[in-house]
Parts: sequence; structure tokens; C-alpha cells
Amino acid sequence: MTKNTKVNAAILIIGNEILSGRTQDTNTSSIALWLNSIGVKVNEVRVIPDIEDTIIDTINHLRKANDYVFTTGGIGPTHDDITAQSISRAFNIEYEIHQEAFKILEAYYKMGEFNTGRQKMVWMPRNANLILNPTSGAPGFYVENVFCLPGVPSILKSMLGGLKDKIAGGDPILSHTISLKTVESEIANSLSNVQDNYKDVEIGSYPFFQAGKLGVSIVIRSEDQSKIDKCSSEILEFVNQKKIEIVVR
Amino acid sequence: MTKNTKVNAAILIIGNEILSGRTQDTNTSSIALWLNSIGVKVNEVRVIPDIEDTIIDTINHLRKANDYVFTTGGIGPTHDDITAQSISRAFNIEYEIHQEAFKILEAYYKMGEFNTGRQKMVWMPRNANLILNPTSGAPGFYVENVFCLPGVPSILKSMLGGLKDKIAGGDPILSHTISLKTVESEIANSLSNVQDNYKDVEIGSYPFFQAGKLGVSIVIRSEDQSKIDKCSSEILEFVNQKKIEIVVR
Repeated sequence: MTKNTKVNAAILIIGNEILSGRTQDTNTSSIALWLNSIGVKVNEVRVIPDIEDTIIDTINHLRKANDYVFTTGGIGPTHDDITAQSISRAFNIEYEIHQEAFKILEAYYKMGEFNTGRQKMVWMPRNANLILNPTSGAPGFYVENVFCLPGVPSILKSMLGGLKDKIAGGDPILSHTISLKTVESEIANSLSNVQDNYKDVEIGSYPFFQAGKLGVSIVIRSEDQSKIDKCSSEILEFVNQKKIEIVVR
Repeated sequence: MTKNTKVNAAILIIGNEILSGRTQDTNTSSIALWLNSIGVKVNEVRVIPDIEDTIIDTINHLRKANDYVFTTGGIGPTHDDITAQSISRAFNIEYEIHQEAFKILEAYYKMGEFNTGRQKMVWMPRNANLILNPTSGAPGFYVENVFCLPGVPSILKSMLGGLKDKIAGGDPILSHTISLKTVESEIANSLSNVQDNYKDVEIGSYPFFQAGKLGVSIVIRSEDQSKIDKCSSEILEFVNQKKIEIVVR
């Protein structure tokens, strides 16, 4: 039984280091895979610089256009960490010391270690909801539908699990992959015919190179397993007719 | 002598496979590093699905807001490759067979191999300029300030070099990194003071984990080497005072 609900999200990566190419973003993939598993589809990703007005404008656009927004980066202790103050301004909420976050970090650090640098991390929009951080203490937070996570991938990943009951997902997005020893142009027309038969199923075709050999992965995505199965059968039909080898990846 | 010109770009990643988290984007980093080296700063990155209206609207926004736009993905032979037709519609230009591209692929493939699937790759906006592809034949193209590249990372990388004389860059963006055996909160205040002294220099602070040890990389970016040098000196001054160890990464 499907609920027939579609829930979507945007991911906002905040950080000059991604735009300069110095750092390779991996958080998009972590967040998207996790969201898929709880029935939330990512509509859009944006990467923007550490500029307050840009963050505010982008947040205010994305939070209205999507059910959920997930930001990464800019919640640490240094001068270039301006996400919390920008979110406060975007929502027009006071930016102040969050008492619960203060207590968490006071308990986390040894006596004398909770210095002014670290205390910057407890400044948040008033009454923000905390996102607990099992790795390094300093919590993330959310305001309405905007969830703010850190940029360090291992810390971010450790915080996602705790969010599950805060997100109302739809039907999980299911997928099935068929990998073939062929090139895209050999299957393009046949695949296009299958797509025409199943307009609400997402069929993607992705070339790959593996151990010096060319191949194509066909990815079929839908909330409805029976549609995926029917699509797969039609694809396997032309694969057999064309005597194309199926490969394991 | 600096030219004092600022040239900026947006990167548009087109592809459901990035939004689903299935594929990790690496093209952003490749394009951004290359653009930096020729004096073009990336202002913004967006990842959007293979939906024609979304591609058209996003292209039309980005090409007006930036000096250059680079798209990746969606120029292959399958049904989900809709970048070329979307760009044609965005510019309101006829979508048709590109004679020069046709000749290139006709020569590239053996007799009989240039099938209808492959022929889809020579459909482009009328009079588009070709971007040659030394890896797999099928060219990319550009119209005005919008450059369309393939999604496969190795092919994309091989095509960037040939674009150098098509892009009018500004002063190259220079950077210097100082890596320290410390945590961000120990240097946050001092670093903030240096940033206040050099408002037009971009100073970023990035925590890292290396061989089980915590560290922070400070990245100083500017078009002006002398400003980077002055900034570095001020940073090294407080690093010495605090007796923080400098590490090699």
C-alpha cells in the first residue's frame, strides 16, 4: 500500500572551500542517500560562499520552495562560520546564547577548555531545536524546516541518525540497477521506448569504466516496486534480444 | 601589476544520479580548480534534475548573473540526455543537426557504427561552437557564455584544456595554506583579528583529521600575492606566540 505522498528537500552547502575546488564535497551524497531511505527526494543542491546576504537570500528561497532544507558548514568557532547568525536573520529571530547548547558544551569540555572561541558555537537563533552531535559535542540546530549541520563529513554523518523522527518522509524511493556490457548508443532507442511506457518511473542511463571495460548502468527509480519490476522486465527483454551481457558491479 | 578584473562563473551539474546520492560529483572540483588557475572565481554551484523546464529556467538565471556558466551532464545519446535541447530552448535557437559535429563523429566511428543513438549527440543549438573531445569523440559546445560539458569526469577533464583561449580570465586567484596542529577554537579570536585587518582577503579555517590527529588548515586567498604574504606573517606571529606546531600536509 502506497501513501502517495511526495516529500522533497534542498541541500545547501555553505563554504568557500567547496567553490574553490580545494575540498571535494561528499556531504551531498551522504544526506541524499539517507533522505532517500526515509522517503524524501532531493530536488536541488546549491553551493554558495560564506557571504551573509547570499546565505539569507538562498535560505529564504529554498525553505519556501521545499518541504525541508539541509545546510552543511559554517557552524564552527571561527570568523568564517556565519551560518547560525545568517539563519537568525533569515527568520528574523534573535541571535543569542542557547542555554541548552551551553550546558551540553560546558559538560563536554574539561574545566577551562570551554573558551570564548568554543562559546561562539552556542550562539543560535532563539529557541532553535538542537541536533545532537555524538562525535564532537557541538550540536547543530533546526528552525522550522531548515536543518543546520556541520561541514566535517564524519561528524555530519554521525548526526543524521538522530534526525529520523524529526522528518516526515513519504514513501521510500526504491531503485533497481541493471549493469550491462554495452555502450549507451546501442540501447538508447530501446530504453527510450521503455521510458515512454512508464512516464512516472525515473530511468537513468550512466556509462561506466571498470577494469578497462565500457559498460552502462541503467537505474530505475520509483516509489512503486511493481512499476520497477515491470520496467526491469521490459529492459531485460531487449537486453536478451540484443544478446547484451549483464555484469555484476 | 594586477589587472584588477574580477571574473566569475557558475557551475550547473545536471543529473538525477547526483541528486539521488548514487553518484558522487567530482566535476565541480575539477572545473573550479581549473577556473581558479585562469583567474575565474566560482560564485555558485547548482545541482538540478533532468527536467527540461528546470534546466531552462536555471540556465537563463545563471547566464545573466555570471560571466560564464559551465554545465556538466546530459549530452550523451540516451533519452535522459536533454541538455542540448534545453539550451536551445533557453536561448530560443533552433535545435538541429550540427554539420561540423556530424563530420567529426562520422570520421570517429567505424563504418556502420554511427547509428541513430550516436547521431543524437550531434543535435545542438544552431551555430553552437564546438568543444573538442580528445577522449571519446563526441564534442561539447558553447553558446554565448554557456559551456556544455559531459558528465563523465575523465572525459570532462580532457576537454577543459582546449577551452583556455575561449575564456577571458582575470587575475589568477592565489592561495597559501598554513596547516597547524591545533583546534579551531584555540586560534579563532586571533584569526578573526587578522581577517579584520585584511577585509578583502579571504581567510578560511578548515579542521582536518590526519593519522588520528586533529589539525586546522588556514587558507588565505587573494589575487594579490603581497596581501597574502602580509596576512601569513600576521598569522605566523600569533602561531609562534601560542607555540602552535606547524605541520606539513
